[in-house]
Amino acid sequence: MKIAILPGDGIGPEIVDQAVKVLNALDEKFELESAPVGGAGYAAHGHPLPEGTLALAKAADAILFGAVGDFKYDTLERALRPEQAILGLRKNLGLFANLRPAILYPELAGASTLKPEVVSGLDILIIRELTGDIYFGQPRGVRECPDGAFKGQREGFDTMRYAEGEIRRIAHVAFQAAQKRDKRLTSVDKANVLETFQFWRDIVTDVHKEYPDVALDHMYVDNAAMQLVRAPKRFDVLVTGNMFGDILSDQASMLTGSIGMLPSASLDANNKGLYEPSHGSAPDIAGKGVANPLATILSAAMMLRYSLGRAEQAGRIENAVKAVLKQGLRTPDIYEEGTTKVGTSQMGDAVVKALA
Amino acid sequence: MKIAILPGDGIGPEIVDQAVKVLNALDEKFELESAPVGGAGYAAHGHPLPEGTLALAKAADAILFGAVGDFKYDTLERALRPEQAILGLRKNLGLFANLRPAILYPELAGASTLKPEVVSGLDILIIRELTGDIYFGQPRGVRECPDGAFKGQREGFDTMRYAEGEIRRIAHVAFQAAQKRDKRLTSVDKANVLETFQFWRDIVTDVHKEYPDVALDHMYVDNAAMQLVRAPKRFDVLVTGNMFGDILSDQASMLTGSIGMLPSASLDANNKGLYEPSHGSAPDIAGKGVANPLATILSAAMMLRYSLGRAEQAGRIENAVKAVLKQGLRTPDIYEEGTTKVGTSQMGDAVVKALA
Ligand SMILES: CC(C)[C@H](C(=O)O)[C@@H](O)C(=O)O
Ligand SMILES: CC(C)[C@H](C(=O)O)[C@@H](O)C(=O)O
Repeated sequence: MKIAILPGDGIGPEIVDQAVKVLNALDEKFELESAPVGGAGYAAHGHPLPEGTLALAKAADAILFGAVGDFKYDTLERALRPEQAILGLRKNLGLFANLRPAILYPELAGASTLKPEVVSGLDILIIRELTGDIYFGQPRGVRECPDGAFKGQREGFDTMRYAEGEIRRIAHVAFQAAQKRDKRLTSVDKANVLETFQFWRDIVTDVHKEYPDVALDHMYVDNAAMQLVRAPKRFDVLVTGNMFGDILSDQASMLTGSIGMLPSASLDANNKGLYEPSHGSAPDIAGKGVANPLATILSAAMMLRYSLGRAEQAGRIENAVKAVLKQGLRTPDIYEEGTTKVGTSQMGDAVVKALA
Repeated sequence: MKIAILPGDGIGPEIVDQAVKVLNALDEKFELESAPVGGAGYAAHGHPLPEGTLALAKAADAILFGAVGDFKYDTLERALRPEQAILGLRKNLGLFANLRPAILYPELAGASTLKPEVVSGLDILIIRELTGDIYFGQPRGVRECPDGAFKGQREGFDTMRYAEGEIRRIAHVAFQAAQKRDKRLTSVDKANVLETFQFWRDIVTDVHKEYPDVALDHMYVDNAAMQLVRAPKRFDVLVTGNMFGDILSDQASMLTGSIGMLPSASLDANNKGLYEPSHGSAPDIAGKGVANPLATILSAAMMLRYSLGRAEQAGRIENAVKAVLKQGLRTPDIYEEGTTKVGTSQMGDAVVKALA
């Protein structure tokens, strides 16, 4: 089993180091190979997703990804900016199913900006389609406005689109995920305005016939954004498109107040996947040894479960993370009075110790 | 001065009645004329936006709108469903600037699902472009997928687009609104992915040159959804496109926990406008006399200020609303122990009394 290690920029390298420590502490050894990506890819090879990095990602059984982006690359033209690497990996590898759990650990309930009774015990799973929608739809660009009141002016434009098969495959992922949980799926769309999402709703409704044990409801995206604030625990699994999923999964992760704890998986049709923390590269704290490595360590656990068929090892890591939280160890982002503040590397070591 | 009164469906008629009471209690009398809209429009004339209703809205100096939608119209084909009325009014009247304040009244701080320290004193203004973007962009529909892995299948598609002049005029509205407040404007986009919103960012940056006294920052929509949960008070004015504005303005209104208090204005280039509560038609409680009329009454106040040039009268109404809250009067949606529960009509009467 070969794992591509793509640390990236900012805090990426230091948090990925801790996850690698944890992987190396398992009985079974995996072949790990690193390559630069994002700003680091640009610095090394002039492109955020260098050919060698893409080749490695393609050849590997799974990819552990840190984070990309740093102030110093902000002025590059868009095609060369770090985040193009993540879009390129998703598209080239066909990673269409993004799984984003939003879980509030009981020990960290106080970290949320929401009242404890609203979020305690929160455990929702957002499934975001990741290779379609307005993210990649052609045509797009800046052109002369062809009609209407602004005819002849410049206009920016993009195309939102979803084909039937694209909706079907993400719907299957979502229904199957719901079957393993509380059997409730909310499909989020904007069927009252968008043709794309009226079509989405029709197809999801059709796929539902194959999963009679799952309760399906449809919700408009504006209402979903409200319900996530008002009563987030009412949800079990949510499924939505790439653009709405970008917004809602970030909103949901922030409900926990501890985004430094939240992993993510992006899977292809064969459960090969890219695993990364839900948070970003935080260049302001990079290199200071204070970043929280737990989201990355939990991403490695997801990798063992979904791509490497090692559910038991995944469970061991997840339990080790719970144990260090119980021990009261906290990186600064989740620190509260009465707990013990530790750095990135100490946190990684503590998880390794708790594995034993 | 002629005001079109469009009560609509669900709780629309009963809440609009209270706002009409308040308008009639002012010294200056306005000419009020009603017409059916939404489901009521369909029931009366076979269309959610009957010709007569549109003609009245066009002829009036301002429009007071209740809410549209009811379960019984859910099975109509999309073109006949109640919400098409609101889209039709926006487009036909050129109501491109939607102003959505999210204000937390001190008396209602407990109603929020967020911790008091995170939201107390919240006062942000979201400005949503309302006649462009993917809401109206052509082409759109369901077609045969022309390319890619799903070629030949059916696909749903829509077009996102913003012309330069469209962005400029909403940017001017936003900068001018910021000038009257704390002089901070956040433009929300997705410039890292969408051509439309890279263009949006460029134009907003250009318009900023005319408003050197306003501090402008740009934020990605996913980050904005996070910051609205993490630290909503950091914002003063936000400006964004139609689709992102739909999501973020609803999210922001829910932060207050009292969406029954929040008015909105949708303005054209000459400050003619449509005014409506931020909440919906709540058909489940319609006709029971329990709906909160304050958002509609406050919408009437916005109408006096923005469209009718009666800022002083607007202020009187807003003060009357504050007074009834201080008196402890509450409709069920904002009721807490120790306050006095009142119905829709009693609340309207109390505002009229407080005006005196
Ligand atoms: C960096 C950006 C292109 C990306 C996205 O919008 O998908 C990010 O926000 C994410 O959610 O992974
Ligand atoms: C009813 C719907 C078409 C509308 C919209 O999406 O604009 C509503 O959600 C709103 O925000 O006024």
